[in-house]
Amino acid sequence: MTLTCVSDLDRCSKEGCLWQPALIWIGINIVVTCLGSALVVYLQPLASGSGVPYIKSYLNGVKLPGLLTLECFVAKVGGVVMSILGGLACGKEGPMAHSGSIIAAGLGKGRVRLLCKNKRVSAYDGFRDDHEIRDFVSGGAASGVSAAFGAPVGGTLFSVEEAASFWSQSLTWRVFFSAMIACFFTNFLLSAFNGTPNQLSAPGLVRFDVFPNLKFDLIEIPVFLVMAVVGGLVGAAFVVLNYKLTVFRYRYIKLKWLKVAEAGLVAAITGLASFIMIISLNSCTDKTPYDEHAVITKMHCTDNQHHSLSTLFLATPEGCLKALLHDPFGSFGAVTLLIFVVVFFFLAVWTYGLSVSSGVFIPSLVIGATWGRLFGIAVVNLFPGDREHYELEVGKYALIGAASQLGGVLRTTISLTVIIVECTGEVSFGLPIMIVLMISKWVGDFISTGLYDMNIEVLGLPLLPWDPPALCDTIKASDLMNAPALTLNKVEKVGRIVEILRNETFCGFPVVNAKGRDHGKQSKVRGLILRSQLLVLLKHKIFSPESMMQPNTVRLKDFRKYYLQYLKIEDVEISEEEMEYWIDLRPYVTPNPYTVEPTFSLPRLFRLFRGLGLRHLIVVNDVNEPIGMITRKDLAKFRVESKRGLVKVEQLNIEDK
Amino acid sequence: MTLTCVSDLDRCSKEGCLWQPALIWIGINIVVTCLGSALVVYLQPLASGSGVPYIKSYLNGVKLPGLLTLECFVAKVGGVVMSILGGLACGKEGPMAHSGSIIAAGLGKGRVRLLCKNKRVSAYDGFRDDHEIRDFVSGGAASGVSAAFGAPVGGTLFSVEEAASFWSQSLTWRVFFSAMIACFFTNFLLSAFNGTPNQLSAPGLVRFDVFPNLKFDLIEIPVFLVMAVVGGLVGAAFVVLNYKLTVFRYRYIKLKWLKVAEAGLVAAITGLASFIMIISLNSCTDKTPYDEHAVITKMHCTDNQHHSLSTLFLATPEGCLKALLHDPFGSFGAVTLLIFVVVFFFLAVWTYGLSVSSGVFIPSLVIGATWGRLFGIAVVNLFPGDREHYELEVGKYALIGAASQLGGVLRTTISLTVIIVECTGEVSFGLPIMIVLMISKWVGDFISTGLYDMNIEVLGLPLLPWDPPALCDTIKASDLMNAPALTLNKVEKVGRIVEILRNETFCGFPVVNAKGRDHGKQSKVRGLILRSQLLVLLKHKIFSPESMMQPNTVRLKDFRKYYLQYLKIEDVEISEEEMEYWIDLRPYVTPNPYTVEPTFSLPRLFRLFRGLGLRHLIVVNDVNEPIGMITRKDLAKFRVESKRGLVKVEQLNIEDK
Repeated sequence: MTLTCVSDLDRCSKEGCLWQPALIWIGINIVVTCLGSALVVYLQPLASGSGVPYIKSYLNGVKLPGLLTLECFVAKVGGVVMSILGGLACGKEGPMAHSGSIIAAGLGKGRVRLLCKNKRVSAYDGFRDDHEIRDFVSGGAASGVSAAFGAPVGGTLFSVEEAASFWSQSLTWRVFFSAMIACFFTNFLLSAFNGTPNQLSAPGLVRFDVFPNLKFDLIEIPVFLVMAVVGGLVGAAFVVLNYKLTVFRYRYIKLKWLKVAEAGLVAAITGLASFIMIISLNSCTDKTPYDEHAVITKMHCTDNQHHSLSTLFLATPEGCLKALLHDPFGSFGAVTLLIFVVVFFFLAVWTYGLSVSSGVFIPSLVIGATWGRLFGIAVVNLFPGDREHYELEVGKYALIGAASQLGGVLRTTISLTVIIVECTGEVSFGLPIMIVLMISKWVGDFISTGLYDMNIEVLGLPLLPWDPPALCDTIKASDLMNAPALTLNKVEKVGRIVEILRNETFCGFPVVNAKGRDHGKQSKVRGLILRSQLLVLLKHKIFSPESMMQPNTVRLKDFRKYYLQYLKIEDVEISEEEMEYWIDLRPYVTPNPYTVEPTFSLPRLFRLFRGLGLRHLIVVNDVNEPIGMITRKDLAKFRVESKRGLVKVEQLNIEDK
Repeated sequence: MTLTCVSDLDRCSKEGCLWQPALIWIGINIVVTCLGSALVVYLQPLASGSGVPYIKSYLNGVKLPGLLTLECFVAKVGGVVMSILGGLACGKEGPMAHSGSIIAAGLGKGRVRLLCKNKRVSAYDGFRDDHEIRDFVSGGAASGVSAAFGAPVGGTLFSVEEAASFWSQSLTWRVFFSAMIACFFTNFLLSAFNGTPNQLSAPGLVRFDVFPNLKFDLIEIPVFLVMAVVGGLVGAAFVVLNYKLTVFRYRYIKLKWLKVAEAGLVAAITGLASFIMIISLNSCTDKTPYDEHAVITKMHCTDNQHHSLSTLFLATPEGCLKALLHDPFGSFGAVTLLIFVVVFFFLAVWTYGLSVSSGVFIPSLVIGATWGRLFGIAVVNLFPGDREHYELEVGKYALIGAASQLGGVLRTTISLTVIIVECTGEVSFGLPIMIVLMISKWVGDFISTGLYDMNIEVLGLPLLPWDPPALCDTIKASDLMNAPALTLNKVEKVGRIVEILRNETFCGFPVVNAKGRDHGKQSKVRGLILRSQLLVLLKHKIFSPESMMQPNTVRLKDFRKYYLQYLKIEDVEISEEEMEYWIDLRPYVTPNPYTVEPTFSLPRLFRLFRGLGLRHLIVVNDVNEPIGMITRKDLAKFRVESKRGLVKVEQLNIEDK
């Protein structure tokens, strides 16, 4: 298709029929993008965007039903193919991480099911499933990134730094192994696709390719630092503009067809803008492009020249990046680059957050590489004495620019450094990359949060960060807790349980031994029972007319059957008569739940939740009577915002979904 | 010195006076080694060995006074120089990690002191020092490894995988940064030493150097697998033999001069063995060695030949490794290699654990590379059709052998994979390396624990592993705890505190509010006070004749002054009269200590200690009265041994030191 388009372009620029290919091009863009967007909007809205913020929240412990389903996978993968085909200013790396996670979760659930069938699973193993699936998802995300960049170590660290909330040695090892296999397999398939399966010469989809001579002089360090600051500023501008746009979308673009229409509109404008730029800008060059497979258009250029800008627009996003990093000096004029970067920046801002499946890695790299190349041109003109030397190194500046822009947008530092070092294969150049990333992160953090965190904030997901919020030493457990605690007796009436489950949204309840069945008096904590467990008990009718009789028993596999099915109280039918029956909860409670006293401070509560991965904590008084409950939502409420050097603690209002 | 020795060798092998250089060589070896050993034995015994097991224990929370002192640094660095100079079969990579940690700890303590002077430190910050120093030590260890191998990512992961016990995102970032700078600076210095400071061509001390064509066919995978099993077996043999030797040393070599003498003996035998081998084995070759700076001896060889085995013995350990990895096929005969690997193996086993500063990385790599080369020779002879192809690839087999041997000895997998990938700069070859390391680890684990863990076990250090011991679900807090709990009242007599501190070794005590001053009745937990805090209070005489009066106050900086000084009760002088005085502990206790009930199970206790980094935990009954204390030693007692497929739980007897 591209080739027809190119020949049409070449022909029409002479014959003056440019509106023909323009219309065809834009038309195809709109149709394909709308299809992709419809897939996301109507099949599974969680498939929109890059998916990394969702995966991050999921791994942090937030429940997002539908995130790891087959529909989501279809919408994600189909959607991202359409988005790229539709010519949107977006990449496919975030979606690759998300779809990797979905595949991994599928494998994980399959494994859990297999285990249930074949092995006598002990009661201890019974409740580890959540962790297991999470481990699989971490591995999937890492594999996705690893396959995208051919960077297994970087992918692993990305998963650990950006996504995972809990670290363990064995998990890292497994994640690393899967990332390594993903990298190898991508390499093998791509090499086979290129006709050389034994060469293993294509370790990832995005290759920065080897820079022939990646060295730096001390004199260049100040230039790198300035570029780092620019990257931080442009990155933060990206985040802030995207934030405004996202809020606007939340308010006004609620209808499904409107979302699809917006995607179509962006596709049209992207196509139109590219076309106008290709026609109006004169960027003919006689330099040979680095990539020998690059699509070359002549347009109005003379015989031994080609139109360099159109090459950027007609290439895949990865090809565009490669051209910016490696094409020889003089391929692109300064004015051309400047206009391109401004237009592309706004298109990318507008695109990210659309209801399409789209990543932000590649657009950021392209924006950064473009203005980085501008810096390279400036350096060449600043040091005319070393002109030839610096002309060779213009790609290095593009690389630094790309890194700095990505750091300014995403604010991940460890994994990005490693990914870039792995992509370029040059350890010595890691230090400047690292310093640039660090500074662009600092500059960016001074202005706004990172893009993914901004997403999570806008979505109102109760994420627990790595460290307890500052300035909260004086907040006590008693300020946070939901009091009075809703307790259940060890032997409780069915009616009371049903009533509580219907009226309250809590997911865990302290179980107490009530003296003489009057609530709240000398009721010491005896355990914790989960909403999901209560629902399974009710569903299986584990109750009896008399309080001392235990008619049925429920087995572990029954609990497992409903695992991840999100059973609701409406799914359970209880007759009026049964409401008067009794349930003996004793065999099912988790004994010795974690408890704290009301004077426990917020930072220590935070460490308890983070360190142990808790969801519920019972607050008890001096004689072990429950007086309140704290959930992770209560902790996630406190969000510290540090902006422009000021620190502010906010208490968010997180709604139940 | 080496050069004189070489010319002597060459001359004497013709003139028949070989005993002269032999005597000089062995004599120098003995003297230098004994000096190095004496440095370690008499200055700081903690400087012996590689130091990684000590650093690992320290970071896990074990107190090892003297580990991070200047004396230890001098003994470590001086010792390792002497060991290498003395020709022992050892490397300098572990000692580099240890000395990096010492420097880092020094910087850290300096920073803490600086903070105390310049900044009003809040009470909250007051007790974070331990963590801060530990973070510095992690960074130092990573920098050491990074400088040794030119592998910043590998060094970081080594620190995280092998050493660190707690993971945090910001820590990893700092560690990575320091590792990167260490790598860069080593590169700069070494390049400057080689006369090309701008080239940055020497990223680490140990370079595997770039393999020209590191590819593999599917047909080679079975060979790799066999090699992995061999590596696991040989590695485990190394650990087991070394274990027996260590136990023997613990029993019989206790006197200081004996330790020095043993080191001298090993130096003599190492020298003698090398000499006998050089003389008796005929390994003349006309192949040019890979390293152009390699020292070449002729000995009895003809004019255009040189003696390849003597090159191995006369080179630095790193040079020896490089020769084994890169010298062309045919440089070493199969018989030569076989004899060399057997002798070197036993020398290395004997050397590791001597009272000298010595690492185990390089000897393992050399052993592995040697038998790996043997595999390479075998493959060449197995596939005579592809003879030329495989002759070029003999170095690849040496690399696989080296990796597999190291995996079999150390059992670290993530970091070793990354280190080797970084050293060779070939991502695609990471997968076979990884698989080989994994299998050699499995095989090794089936027979024994890893070398570092074996060391820690022999030393009886109370290390808490990553995961709770298996099969311990039925062990409860009440089985573990030290009961009855030694409690202090909120206002306590000086005499009683002094008596407790003199007679007991506990480091933390629950503080209770006693009713009417009679102990043990309705005494609810009000906080926890540390031994070190009590000692500072006593030292500053914060007591008064009447129980309701509070004469002096002690400030945070007084607590800080004694931090890391390990104050003892003997250092505090209390008169008879003062014994009857009262201390009001209330301003100093840590309120709301973590408490559990006696029915808490061991795995959950374990997660509590590991997740929160606790040292003490109070066991309380139903009405919040302390009934026992659990310390990390009580948990570390339970060691699971899984050997030859069987799992065994042991309760160790850890003595107080």
